[in-house]
Amino acid sequence: MPGPIQSIERAAAILRLLSGGARKMGVAELATALGLPKGTVHGILRTLQHVGFVEQSPDTGKYQLGAALFHIGSSYLDVNELRTRALNWSDSLAARSKESVRIGTLHEGQVLVVHHVFRPDNSSQVLEVGALLPAHASALGKVLLANDPVDQLDPARLTGFTPATCTDPDRLRAVLAEVRSRGWASDVEEMVEGEVSVAAPIRDRRGVTVGAIGISGPIERLCGLAGEDAGTPRAELVSYVREAARAISRDLGAIPW
Amino acid sequence: MPGPIQSIERAAAILRLLSGGARKMGVAELATALGLPKGTVHGILRTLQHVGFVEQSPDTGKYQLGAALFHIGSSYLDVNELRTRALNWSDSLAARSKESVRIGTLHEGQVLVVHHVFRPDNSSQVLEVGALLPAHASALGKVLLANDPVDQLDPARLTGFTPATCTDPDRLRAVLAEVRSRGWASDVEEMVEGEVSVAAPIRDRRGVTVGAIGISGPIERLCGLAGEDAGTPRAELVSYVREAARAISRDLGAIPW
Repeated sequence: MPGPIQSIERAAAILRLLSGGARKMGVAELATALGLPKGTVHGILRTLQHVGFVEQSPDTGKYQLGAALFHIGSSYLDVNELRTRALNWSDSLAARSKESVRIGTLHEGQVLVVHHVFRPDNSSQVLEVGALLPAHASALGKVLLANDPVDQLDPARLTGFTPATCTDPDRLRAVLAEVRSRGWASDVEEMVEGEVSVAAPIRDRRGVTVGAIGISGPIERLCGLAGEDAGTPRAELVSYVREAARAISRDLGAIPW
Repeated sequence: MPGPIQSIERAAAILRLLSGGARKMGVAELATALGLPKGTVHGILRTLQHVGFVEQSPDTGKYQLGAALFHIGSSYLDVNELRTRALNWSDSLAARSKESVRIGTLHEGQVLVVHHVFRPDNSSQVLEVGALLPAHASALGKVLLANDPVDQLDPARLTGFTPATCTDPDRLRAVLAEVRSRGWASDVEEMVEGEVSVAAPIRDRRGVTVGAIGISGPIERLCGLAGEDAGTPRAELVSYVREAARAISRDLGAIPW
């Protein structure tokens, strides 16, 4: 069987570079990053421009991602069965919990947000669909890591975002074991100070965890404020999240009755 | 100067096919659609799968778009200066008009939605970012067509969606001339029955129309109900849309004072 086609791999590498970091790069910059001759990179860029996957700034001559790539990439959401099945349940979870709802899947060790329902309170919120969240610092990510058959924990990726982020691989593995056994995860100020998230796994008919659904919001609303409950997500909210996850799993065939 | 690289062009064509229509296609189907040997298409698909741009269903063996392409494509929004500049103004237009707001640019003769603010009333709404709207049947599209230096009117594309859709090229050209001179466009039940949209152009420092901003909602709220105003967008709402468009244009350097 012949190997992968080199020019397509290189084109993909260019698109990846343009999607992260600087996002506007010149030919020389890209050639250095890829360790390729400028002429080779230029030929690939011209083709990518021709198909609308990159655009060249008329002012600076630098390249950036193109509108065609954005439109084609968006179509991914239309075939994502998880997202389609989850639309109604996420709306009702947002209404019950009065918090924003996200659905994510594991993508290269991070959480790819495939659906986002804004908190139903008219406040200004930033759409996170398509974004990648750190798996070790989010409830969605912990649920996905805990239920992934392959150990995707990369110690080099355990960035600390707040004093509460768990950056120790052994401690994180213990946390994930607990998440697996109790069936849900939380993140209490581990990604953003003052923010809490709660998530539960979505399973398909094979019993495989295909995604996670969760809510996030300010610690003052999501956690108990005093006594035993201080710093722990409120049981009522946890039950809403787990009920939504079970309802979607049932729709996906995980629960046959 | 060498021509475009064939394998990259073919890979792009496959991604385009998978982003429209059936969205899940087998090797044979793709080979027929592209007029290429199955072996060639298979080699490209394996490479695209290798870089995460397509995924193969374990059940059917068919191919669909992959998560990596979705994530990379989403980054387009981060470099879209129009969208970045327009975020706050779109929120405030949604709040003033109490209707949903969309920002679009022209992409291959259609309107590519780059930003969407939901109507601030907690109702269930479908996110349209990344979607393509018909230019001749939407207010956003008419604004963009009217101000485009190239005549992008393709008579073959003038699909009728409702009895009110303008499908006659000559009549549409007259409408566009009016849009150009008065500075805003409307669509009264031309795309969806019962729905009305109003839009105005966003210009950059060169005076070039780089996008359009508009509101859409039910005819009962957007149009006058009796007398002279019946079936015409309410002047107050038109003024909100035009003010938002001017504010964004100013931020982009169109108005130097």
